Amino acid sequence: MANTSHVLLTSHPASIFKYAAPLNWGESDPLLRGPVVASLTTREHRNAIGTHSGSYTVYRALANASGALTMEHKPDLTNTSPVVNIGPYPSWEDPEKIVSLDPWGAKVGEVFQSFYEKGYDIRPTIAITAAHIKMPEILEAIELGRLHIDEKVITKNRDVVVTKAAIDPVWYLPGIAARFQVSEGDLRRVLFDQTGGMFPELITRRDLKLLLPPIGSTTVYIFGDVQNIADTSKKLTVRIHDECNGSDVFGSDICTCRPYLTHGIEESIRTAQEGGSGVIVYFRKEGRALGEVTKFLVYNARKRQEGGDSAATYFHRTECVAGVQDMRFQQLMPDVLHWLGVQRIDNLVSMSDMKYNAIVQSGIEVVRRVSIPDELIPPDAQVEMEAKKAAGYFTEGKTKNVSELKKVKGRKLDE
Amino acid sequence: MANTSHVLLTSHPASIFKYAAPLNWGESDPLLRGPVVASLTTREHRNAIGTHSGSYTVYRALANASGALTMEHKPDLTNTSPVVNIGPYPSWEDPEKIVSLDPWGAKVGEVFQSFYEKGYDIRPTIAITAAHIKMPEILEAIELGRLHIDEKVITKNRDVVVTKAAIDPVWYLPGIAARFQVSEGDLRRVLFDQTGGMFPELITRRDLKLLLPPIGSTTVYIFGDVQNIADTSKKLTVRIHDECNGSDVFGSDICTCRPYLTHGIEESIRTAQEGGSGVIVYFRKEGRALGEVTKFLVYNARKRQEGGDSAATYFHRTECVAGVQDMRFQQLMPDVLHWLGVQRIDNLVSMSDMKYNAIVQSGIEVVRRVSIPDELIPPDAQVEMEAKKAAGYFTEGKTKNVSELKKVKGRKLDE
Repeated sequence: MANTSHVLLTSHPASIFKYAAPLNWGESDPLLRGPVVASLTTREHRNAIGTHSGSYTVYRALANASGALTMEHKPDLTNTSPVVNIGPYPSWEDPEKIVSLDPWGAKVGEVFQSFYEKGYDIRPTIAITAAHIKMPEILEAIELGRLHIDEKVITKNRDVVVTKAAIDPVWYLPGIAARFQVSEGDLRRVLFDQTGGMFPELITRRDLKLLLPPIGSTTVYIFGDVQNIADTSKKLTVRIHDECNGSDVFGSDICTCRPYLTHGIEESIRTAQEGGSGVIVYFRKEGRALGEVTKFLVYNARKRQEGGDSAATYFHRTECVAGVQDMRFQQLMPDVLHWLGVQRIDNLVSMSDMKYNAIVQSGIEVVRRVSIPDELIPPDAQVEMEAKKAAGYFTEGKTKNVSELKKVKGRKLDE
Repeated sequence: MANTSHVLLTSHPASIFKYAAPLNWGESDPLLRGPVVASLTTREHRNAIGTHSGSYTVYRALANASGALTMEHKPDLTNTSPVVNIGPYPSWEDPEKIVSLDPWGAKVGEVFQSFYEKGYDIRPTIAITAAHIKMPEILEAIELGRLHIDEKVITKNRDVVVTKAAIDPVWYLPGIAARFQVSEGDLRRVLFDQTGGMFPELITRRDLKLLLPPIGSTTVYIFGDVQNIADTSKKLTVRIHDECNGSDVFGSDICTCRPYLTHGIEESIRTAQEGGSGVIVYFRKEGRALGEVTKFLVYNARKRQEGGDSAATYFHRTECVAGVQDMRFQQLMPDVLHWLGVQRIDNLVSMSDMKYNAIVQSGIEVVRRVSIPDELIPPDAQVEMEAKKAAGYFTEGKTKNVSELKKVKGRKLDE
């Protein structure tokens, strides 16, 4: 490896900005909007802080450090373009509607040809592919006659046909600051400071308005025709799902995450088979975006507290450990729906008030909210369920008062 | 929010290091080893670069920026301590055996009391809890008589009893550099540079030997008695599983990830029921640590290439897009096994040569390797399976030659 000893700790606008790609967030013409350039092969083209692949940027740097990957590598994007067209939609032209992803992120090969010709190393921040999925719960729904084989959404051999998109975060900092009702300067300073000093350019390069933060990506699963999503004459079912690895993958019985997810998928398939479409959005926000270490610490504190795990103290235990009940910040979540051109959700498969409020406040109509059917709630997850309902989560049933909440108990750690 | 305009872009050792917690990596006495201090409440105590919760550090900073979380918050760790004891093991005293996690990370409340009394804000980087899990594939294995209810590992109502641990990354930089056979200086410079300028302290604070990188955590699921893992008189089954959200959660048929995971869980339960133990380690290394956007781009390129998706060109398509075939760097993976005190693995449920080699080279004996049973491989995943076997992955069967590999075809995108 070349052993250059001189390292620039941060770049400064005076020396660099003149070759940077233009950026006019929300501009309808993509060439005037400008591409997001966060690659590192030609530094002076960059118009963003951070780089691609979210938290996997660290692994790529390891690949560079170990010599497995040359720093000059540019991806060969042959045949990688989206399998379906999504957008542009009017929401793409509104600089405030979408601030945490690049709506043009899947179309870079199509719309930024003139930049590629000038040598700009522009990378897709969204990829769209097609797949077949097979989940035990959906197979059961077919077996029990709740879903049927239509040879379109569900094939003869019981595969479910989906279109799926992976989305890396692209944050337009003035827009993010507006969502959180803080000044851009305060946002930049705290983001830099409270991450332990990540990206000094947050401070030194105020001309760079984009940040690609090292967080997990978001995945969208689409059932039925993608064009139906933005078509208000067609029904739309949506579930916004925040990752819970313990339940989603391993079927932990302390929460309702996987049962609610598979219920959302079943409802999405049903709407697609009835001529509409269904959308599942999967966010990497493990343990309410507190991460799994904090989550497990909270589990222990819940199970061991005096009186045992109880719906009455469900939220409080999280707050003791983490300082807050939740860090998911649903105010950024609706961006993905606006990328898809969603205007109305006929069935929102979620009980979360935070998700509902964020969606409605972003200008999307919600016709009906769908709670999880009682028979899908594991016994130990009653603690979570009753606590959430009492805290204002949506339910078609009744909510419990404090003395009733105290009676809703979970299993002990040694049970 | 306080609007202090002065921002330190990076700290310098001369002004700070005298209050920092000691750090002597691999020292057997934890008080001489010293705690990992990466909290931000008292900067001069820090002995690490970056901060807690991996990639969720960004969400915590958002919580700070929005005013939801005060910057002075210290976690109340009452009742959060591990539900079982793990270690210390002799491997904890070897500064080269474990370099990517803090073996004392779960025991901080127990061993660093004297530091807490002096006001050090030490946070657990590992949390250990107990859980019940219920997976459709395991229920089927019970129904078909492959597993039985023993009222210990599998309860009467068919729950599987597990102990689970979440582990945040803690990188000892000299040790990481040694694993990759590069100098510590080169590693620091490239990590800083190729992440787009993350953490200038990598360059300015060479006295700080630890980095808490903003990547995903690792989860360990333990079946059977935790003390059996390090006991060489007891059998041990292990699967090292790298996240594949598309299969693990959604059951995509293009790969064998979830079927192989559930097979590993079934084998782990069996060994636990026979008086040994089983361990599943779940790493957040989506799409071979290339991330899901790159993964979906590669899927499109594979399916659309001339001649269609084929086992003969499986690895090549990834390399065109990503520059490498794989970024998982299995050389760091065995650390978690050494944290658990593993000395011998009786059944390694994995076909990966990279995983096998890394484990054996780290000093752990592997008695038997277990391939995925043929009946668990989805038809479209034959492309991956045959490509991997031909590339040297472990198999009990035969491997195909180039002309045979060309005949192993996957589904097209529009099928």
